[in-house]
Amino acid sequence: MIDPFIIAGPCAVESEEQLFQVAKAVREAGGQFLRGGAFKPRTSPRSFQGLGERGLEILANAAKTFNLKIVTEVIDTRDVELVAKHADILQIGSRNMQNFSLLKEVGKSRKTVLLKRGLAATVKEWLSAAEYIKSEGNNRIILCERGIRTFCDHTRNTLDLSVVPYLKIHSDLPIIVDPSHATGDRALVIPLARAALAVGCDGLMLEVHPQPDQALCDGPQSLTIEQFKSFMLEITNYKGGRKVNVSSI
Amino acid sequence: MIDPFIIAGPCAVESEEQLFQVAKAVREAGGQFLRGGAFKPRTSPRSFQGLGERGLEILANAAKTFNLKIVTEVIDTRDVELVAKHADILQIGSRNMQNFSLLKEVGKSRKTVLLKRGLAATVKEWLSAAEYIKSEGNNRIILCERGIRTFCDHTRNTLDLSVVPYLKIHSDLPIIVDPSHATGDRALVIPLARAALAVGCDGLMLEVHPQPDQALCDGPQSLTIEQFKSFMLEITNYKGGRKVNVSSI
Amino acid sequence: MIDPFIIAGPCAVESEEQLFQVAKAVREAGGQFLRGGAFKPRTSPRSFQGLGERGLEILANAAKTFNLKIVTEVIDTRDVELVAKHADILQIGSRNMQNFSLLKEVGKSRKTVLLKRGLAATVKEWLSAAEYIKSEGNNRIILCERGIRTFCDHTRNTLDLSVVPYLKIHSDLPIIVDPSHATGDRALVIPLARAALAVGCDGLMLEVHPQPDQALCDGPQSLTIEQFKSFMLEITNYKGGRKVNVSSI
Amino acid sequence: MIDPFIIAGPCAVESEEQLFQVAKAVREAGGQFLRGGAFKPRTSPRSFQGLGERGLEILANAAKTFNLKIVTEVIDTRDVELVAKHADILQIGSRNMQNFSLLKEVGKSRKTVLLKRGLAATVKEWLSAAEYIKSEGNNRIILCERGIRTFCDHTRNTLDLSVVPYLKIHSDLPIIVDPSHATGDRALVIPLARAALAVGCDGLMLEVHPQPDQALCDGPQSLTIEQFKSFMLEITNYKGGRKVNVSSI
Repeated sequence: MIDPFIIAGPCAVESEEQLFQVAKAVREAGGQFLRGGAFKPRTSPRSFQGLGERGLEILANAAKTFNLKIVTEVIDTRDVELVAKHADILQIGSRNMQNFSLLKEVGKSRKTVLLKRGLAATVKEWLSAAEYIKSEGNNRIILCERGIRTFCDHTRNTLDLSVVPYLKIHSDLPIIVDPSHATGDRALVIPLARAALAVGCDGLMLEVHPQPDQALCDGPQSLTIEQFKSFMLEITNYKGGRKVNVSSI
Repeated sequence: MIDPFIIAGPCAVESEEQLFQVAKAVREAGGQFLRGGAFKPRTSPRSFQGLGERGLEILANAAKTFNLKIVTEVIDTRDVELVAKHADILQIGSRNMQNFSLLKEVGKSRKTVLLKRGLAATVKEWLSAAEYIKSEGNNRIILCERGIRTFCDHTRNTLDLSVVPYLKIHSDLPIIVDPSHATGDRALVIPLARAALAVGCDGLMLEVHPQPDQALCDGPQSLTIEQFKSFMLEITNYKGGRKVNVSSI
Repeated sequence: MIDPFIIAGPCAVESEEQLFQVAKAVREAGGQFLRGGAFKPRTSPRSFQGLGERGLEILANAAKTFNLKIVTEVIDTRDVELVAKHADILQIGSRNMQNFSLLKEVGKSRKTVLLKRGLAATVKEWLSAAEYIKSEGNNRIILCERGIRTFCDHTRNTLDLSVVPYLKIHSDLPIIVDPSHATGDRALVIPLARAALAVGCDGLMLEVHPQPDQALCDGPQSLTIEQFKSFMLEITNYKGGRKVNVSSI
Repeated sequence: MIDPFIIAGPCAVESEEQLFQVAKAVREAGGQFLRGGAFKPRTSPRSFQGLGERGLEILANAAKTFNLKIVTEVIDTRDVELVAKHADILQIGSRNMQNFSLLKEVGKSRKTVLLKRGLAATVKEWLSAAEYIKSEGNNRIILCERGIRTFCDHTRNTLDLSVVPYLKIHSDLPIIVDPSHATGDRALVIPLARAALAVGCDGLMLEVHPQPDQALCDGPQSLTIEQFKSFMLEITNYKGGRKVNVSSI
């Protein structure tokens, strides 16, 4: 049994074939959650925007087939109901951390919310964003550190692992870490995943793709299936203090 | 006649009395646009959230009485139609610069959109956000620099005036500057407003409040009515290359 | 007569011919100070490091010929005496803003010191650095804003003009602005120089090179002689509140 | 036997009694290096500046008594010889990372140099600073990540652990981590020290003080002796890939 809370999958749901390959690997390796974007918030309107509802259906099929739970992002208040029909955890991405209408809308749902830290958010602002979700009666919130924007140019963002012990002291919310978006570089993901576990996080979110070089989105930061499986074996005996009760989600 | 494009008003619409006082001053001083938030995106859900539709009505009455046009923020896709009924310019705040659903929704309206730069947005990301508005057929976009997040602690944000000449070269969109949010400090607003005009911006957005010390939101950065009027007199003879045709809005 | 305090010249002294060309232009255009690096602090040890003492001699000859004063950087405590023999103003570059030994050494000289802001220095740290110079008895200090390091990638650094009015309130030291290093882009230098004057700075430091494309250092940000002269004509009637008494230096 | 390379000690050498207490603890816990500042680069000239040569002598006595090696900072080219007489490793602090005269001077010594990353330094600039040391013939360099300056306000700096795996790929130099300066908060030091080991660093630098509340410098980030000993026990069985051969220093 793998103790930490592991969410893995591709950046975007691209096809049934792609997602089933990953889902099978997540299951075999002992992960509990399958991630994959159906609605993608992309910097440019000309980039691939996700498969939408069709993507949600593929996620649902894969999750059912491999007995996994689903984490997927919602980017529009009007889609919350639809996404919540399929997902076990609703993800709020970093660009929407202060989209207060969306926070309130997911606060009205009864689903667990994964709240990513904004690129330029202080810890105080992040916790205040969580208050918006709570203000609607939903206390099922998981925070996710995914890197902040700094002057550094050797990684896509700067992973701020200090928030993990800081939040253990100053908040009751569970905190997981996404080293894939933080670094943007596959070669750095596993070392930083190890660091995230060592610093005391409650779980990890990892991007995994069967053929990263052909990914429609964020290929350079995706682990291969082999890399992912090997890492999962490595952490089998990790005894972290996971706060999240997976079976309750 | 004041040449640059001047938007002024309180951070939030608080009451009819407050807004009429400011609107009168804006009119008398030669400003063309009245700003005021009816829907306020506040860091904490316990802060004042704005008067909502009642705020829009107060704005509409004040603007009609003093022959001004209205700039106000929209923060929810479901409010775009309502806000567009009253406003001449729809403002997208910095927290929503990459709220792509909202960008597309204001793109579907025929109103001019004021797109504030995100706190941690590169110029490329900002122009890509404008592309989302254009992608729905709306090319009436005004960019607004309002400060970026840096390590500095002597101001609320760091006003990046380099974007003005940069955008004059690399974009066709008009660009205005908001020195109030950038500095968070009344004493710095007028000097930076002068700098913004000197660097070539097409207009200014200024916070003005009849009693800044009693403001429900952002008092420390609001000019008094006297300061605003005095600044407007000072710039009467300014001949900037304003790109925005006010009468066409 | 040009009222603001104008320092102009190439990034590095490259040859007598180059410097005399620039010095002549600075004189003709009404500038008071010739700048040029003899000791260059370069990121890589393989980049051009300056002509050293030979560079100082060329500076001295050019300044004498054209009746200008000299501003040049000192980067080593052991060179302070040598540099002070030739220079009227000793420049401390941004990399050395917290080189406290060097600050104390220039504090022991009786020369005016131009203290550039560090890339990541708060205003408080900058003023504390000035205290090191004062602690040795030298109060002749001019501060110089030259851009801070942020996430922005459309300019080399981010020019923080808010420090000018902030320092007018919180310090007695004169403050000048260097838009050349701040932007790293010739096309943005003159607009930001205008902004710097409008915001109330006491002077400007501008890079000028007879053939920027062949400069050994920082060519892309250097104005041509024609651009510089044209800007100087433009500002002839500027009436800023310059605090620096040039004749006392 | 402790495998990773452990440097521990107070921020500043304050007295013989203080340093001997710490040195005893470092020895007993299995650390190899005693740190302590004799020349302190402080933001303000009115802060405690260190005991100077007397501090070096105390360090030497303590190191000899407890069979430890010494790491101490040098901040002035003219002190390199003196500091090198006592120290086994010469530390270049973050404020001096681009003090090229100092880099060249320690490059001329035959001592190992600990080169801390500058507050706003990219990895490329950091490695270029190391080139200055190498350019004088000294290849004995250890890099030290100690946090960068960002907008975050919950820690003093932001520890960028991504540099550890990045440098393992792109450089041959050993890399250690200083979680004390990075966080400025004792409660976060040990979790981040664990993360630093997990991410693959070659060693740690930790601040330890017998009575942190009475420290003359950086008390809030200093571990107590008990905390330090307990952490050292915890990592006894850690098997990191340390690159540094301690006995060769």
